[in-house]
Amino acid sequence: MNDERYIRGSLRLAEVDGEGGQHVVDVLKDVAPDLARYVIEFGFGDVYSRPGLDLRTRELATVAGLAALGHAQPQLRVHVNGALNVGCTPAEVVEVIIQMALYAGFPAALNAAFTAKQVFAERGLLPVVSSAR
Amino acid sequence: MNDERYIRGSLRLAEVDGEGGQHVVDVLKDVAPDLARYVIEFGFGDVYSRPGLDLRTRELATVAGLAALGHAQPQLRVHVNGALNVGCTPAEVVEVIIQMALYAGFPAALNAAFTAKQVFAERGLLPVVSSAR
Amino acid sequence: MNDERYIRGSLRLAEVDGEGGQHVVDVLKDVAPDLARYVIEFGFGDVYSRPGLDLRTRELATVAGLAALGHAQPQLRVHVNGALNVGCTPAEVVEVIIQMALYAGFPAALNAAFTAKQVFAERGLLPVVSSAR
Amino acid sequence: MNDERYIRGSLRLAEVDGEGGQHVVDVLKDVAPDLARYVIEFGFGDVYSRPGLDLRTRELATVAGLAALGHAQPQLRVHVNGALNVGCTPAEVVEVIIQMALYAGFPAALNAAFTAKQVFAERGLLPVVSSAR
Amino acid sequence: MNDERYIRGSLRLAEVDGEGGQHVVDVLKDVAPDLARYVIEFGFGDVYSRPGLDLRTRELATVAGLAALGHAQPQLRVHVNGALNVGCTPAEVVEVIIQMALYAGFPAALNAAFTAKQVFAERGLLPVVSSAR
Amino acid sequence: MNDERYIRGSLRLAEVDGEGGQHVVDVLKDVAPDLARYVIEFGFGDVYSRPGLDLRTRELATVAGLAALGHAQPQLRVHVNGALNVGCTPAEVVEVIIQMALYAGFPAALNAAFTAKQVFAERGLLPVVSSAR
Repeated sequence: MNDERYIRGSLRLAEVDGEGGQHVVDVLKDVAPDLARYVIEFGFGDVYSRPGLDLRTRELATVAGLAALGHAQPQLRVHVNGALNVGCTPAEVVEVIIQMALYAGFPAALNAAFTAKQVFAERGLLPVVSSAR
Repeated sequence: MNDERYIRGSLRLAEVDGEGGQHVVDVLKDVAPDLARYVIEFGFGDVYSRPGLDLRTRELATVAGLAALGHAQPQLRVHVNGALNVGCTPAEVVEVIIQMALYAGFPAALNAAFTAKQVFAERGLLPVVSSAR
Repeated sequence: MNDERYIRGSLRLAEVDGEGGQHVVDVLKDVAPDLARYVIEFGFGDVYSRPGLDLRTRELATVAGLAALGHAQPQLRVHVNGALNVGCTPAEVVEVIIQMALYAGFPAALNAAFTAKQVFAERGLLPVVSSAR
Repeated sequence: MNDERYIRGSLRLAEVDGEGGQHVVDVLKDVAPDLARYVIEFGFGDVYSRPGLDLRTRELATVAGLAALGHAQPQLRVHVNGALNVGCTPAEVVEVIIQMALYAGFPAALNAAFTAKQVFAERGLLPVVSSAR
Repeated sequence: MNDERYIRGSLRLAEVDGEGGQHVVDVLKDVAPDLARYVIEFGFGDVYSRPGLDLRTRELATVAGLAALGHAQPQLRVHVNGALNVGCTPAEVVEVIIQMALYAGFPAALNAAFTAKQVFAERGLLPVVSSAR
Repeated sequence: MNDERYIRGSLRLAEVDGEGGQHVVDVLKDVAPDLARYVIEFGFGDVYSRPGLDLRTRELATVAGLAALGHAQPQLRVHVNGALNVGCTPAEVVEVIIQMALYAGFPAALNAAFTAKQVFAERGLLPVVSSAR
């Protein structure tokens, strides 16, 4: 009965995360498959599919929130990839992370920058050319 | 010697927060004036004055980070106002807050929505017309 | 199309929260009605309606999680009421809160105890008779 | 003079954690032995030895609190084992973790599920058969 | 049997908190008296009574930790008073709070500064004369 | 124009962190060099260079704050080294970490103790001789 939400979520997840999304589904398959289903149905089928915010801004807001939390490095890694997948530049991702130093402190920002660097390196996007100063 | 940073920060603070920024300076004047100075010099003079992210996106990322933290309602209140001041719509602010339910949980998102509602009410912006569903 | 989830969630919400649940819906009505809808559909229709854990244990786990977070006093208040509504005793709620002193520290446990005390007082359940020592 | 608390705590620790508890004592021996002593005396001798909550519910509340915190994976690992040791099923542990997605967000719940999966795998308890849907 | 710890804790609590400590005991009396007992026995009788750190440094470290947590304003208020009671100056308390802006972000530092200001005002200690710049 | 702050910060960073500080600059060089510059200019040039708190107390407060946060192990590692570099003893660092068990819970304190143990081991400072009990 929720097939429509699941399908819509799967398509959005693929658009944002590429194959990364399928990885979470696979890892949870034998321990908490419903948790993976909720990520897809609710996370991507309901929330991520909302209009009202373009996908680039939505991903940058997600990077901001995950960086601020501090304990969500695996998910931050997914969404740094996601931000790049939907057209954000590495410099924009870095700007959002630097901004979080103000609100969540330098450790949260530094650890987020280290995670982002790994993603950028894997995608051959280093060095990041910042437009600031 | 840091006068340039302070002036640049003050101008940016006024642009984002209107008179709200001056309020923080006044409150801290007799307890920790240097903390207020750092908010202006470093927060607004250095970070907020960076190019590389338009001010609307920067404010929405800030709302995301503050909502995710959960303990920063006074600052969230300032930056919901700030987001509106730089041209974000109430619906965009709400979208970012709803997005945070995924990463920081419903309590953080609900409390952020209550704070945003107060700001919107004070500015005569209720009801928020969401573009989603 | 999600009517079944919404109805199932509304029934579960009423069972757990009594009229408290409707209060959240009302408050969010003109600012983020979809966030209230998600609380009902996903929170209560999907997650709270799961079998696999009796409702008393589910509420005590929720009290534990909310107390540990520290920034979720309004939601803790709702779920202390919810725990009592589904048959938990005040002493059980207090036990869970004391347990959290170990993991989240005394401030989180103390603030949760203050919130629980308000709820118990409103329901005429003070003093709590602890079974320990 | 506190020998009684230490002995009572050691017995409870062994009951909950098996040999895992001794590991913490050993690791802290040459850096902060008093911290290990407090874990045993206060954590297990005082709090964990309280009546008023059966040990299964106490462990599930602990899993909830640790999952919600997000930064406590080593301790979550200990208490997923502890929950199983005192008679909780893997499905009950998973239910509590899924419940935390509502309050602490998906990253906290996902990372907790990954930790639980490792424990379940080591004990040959995969796949988890959920009773829900 | 733990009377010695309770008495030692009560004396230390009175030294640090003055009458503020008794207030917590009174508030918890009819809801969670054991939690108050643990604060005294473990918090003040065990940990606060440890040698190895002079009481001024211990209180400043406590102010640092509470400010960084962000959700512990009532306890921060108690320990700003405590820091002053054991001989710290308002300027030292402010220095520690400013330092936390680096690690926990400006909102945590600002909210801590507001709490400290209230305490200083009640004790007639405003304005704080900072020795820095 | 900010050269004075950068130079002052670099000197203070070298004093506190030895070569550890340069490591952060190097790692961020190709991803977020401005974030490293802010750490030096604002973190060490402005805040760490303030008078009003001796460097030993400042480092112990920093260890307290980082331990309480829970998600900042890499930075805690840097500042355990920093505390030792400016003259704190391992026993004082351990005392501050034990104190945090009261406010941030045992997981935060235990994980901080594990991190401190690694630093002490690398510097040949084990076992720590506590002055308490």
